[in-house]
Amino acid sequence: MSIEQTLAATALAFWKIELERADKFFSALTDEQLPLEIAPGRNRLVYLWGHLIAVHDRMLPLLGIGERVYPYLDAPSLLEADRSEKLTTLPPAADLKRWWDEVNSRLTAGLSNFTPADWAAKHTAVSDEAFAANPLRNRLAVLLSRTAHISSHLGQAVIAAK
Amino acid sequence: MSIEQTLAATALAFWKIELERADKFFSALTDEQLPLEIAPGRNRLVYLWGHLIAVHDRMLPLLGIGERVYPYLDAPSLLEADRSEKLTTLPPAADLKRWWDEVNSRLTAGLSNFTPADWAAKHTAVSDEAFAANPLRNRLAVLLSRTAHISSHLGQAVIAAK
Repeated sequence: MSIEQTLAATALAFWKIELERADKFFSALTDEQLPLEIAPGRNRLVYLWGHLIAVHDRMLPLLGIGERVYPYLDAPSLLEADRSEKLTTLPPAADLKRWWDEVNSRLTAGLSNFTPADWAAKHTAVSDEAFAANPLRNRLAVLLSRTAHISSHLGQAVIAAK
Repeated sequence: MSIEQTLAATALAFWKIELERADKFFSALTDEQLPLEIAPGRNRLVYLWGHLIAVHDRMLPLLGIGERVYPYLDAPSLLEADRSEKLTTLPPAADLKRWWDEVNSRLTAGLSNFTPADWAAKHTAVSDEAFAANPLRNRLAVLLSRTAHISSHLGQAVIAAK
């Protein structure tokens, strides 16, 4: 492997590690556990999982892989900051699992085809001018940010389940 | 910038972003806030901060930058899983701030000198044989993992302070 290939593969491998940690945690949740709050008055596990699904869904167009699969997950009832009075009807764990698997499998399939040059290329939410001014606004930056996003919410989620 | 330089610079920039987010949060804590638990019976802010300092301190030898600055931070009283009965005497915020700044400034100075080839090179906790078998056990992998480590604990810490 060349150096650029090694660096790209290292970042992708770490994305997969964090995604698998999240998968292991969230996929094991029961319908009884989904409404648990991570701390009194804080987000519930169902919200964190739905939020991760929607954010990963948005990565598909952001990285030029394809269209979103579940744009309706942005509905305020699911993805606005979690409040019990709004989120009255919880999606069952089986639905969340299905959305989660579908989005992540499309994402991972797309990411696996990226060359180092693809990773260094601009994502779709930055203009040509802005990218010319700052070449670090690239697809790798999106991947690293979304990897840390998983880590952040998983760090919170495990508090509820302990 | 070459592709390998862009990829390395992107990862380093994201480390700095997460480190600055953590710095903004932890450096603003008062001695009154440090004992706050992130959730009832969970880790306190003082533990999370001390833990991040010690983990970053360990990155210095792990990445071949230099010796640890504060090996005594590994003492069970500070860094073992936080329990009120053990952590009876809290270090003041001013000490934590000083340790945090010193470790991170040495770390960032060292990381800024890394070439793409340095990032793709093995870290010091992997043997030559293991590295030959898996070239992804490199310094970039350490950086990505420690960046996500900040994200994870910062995600927990902000719950306590809201």
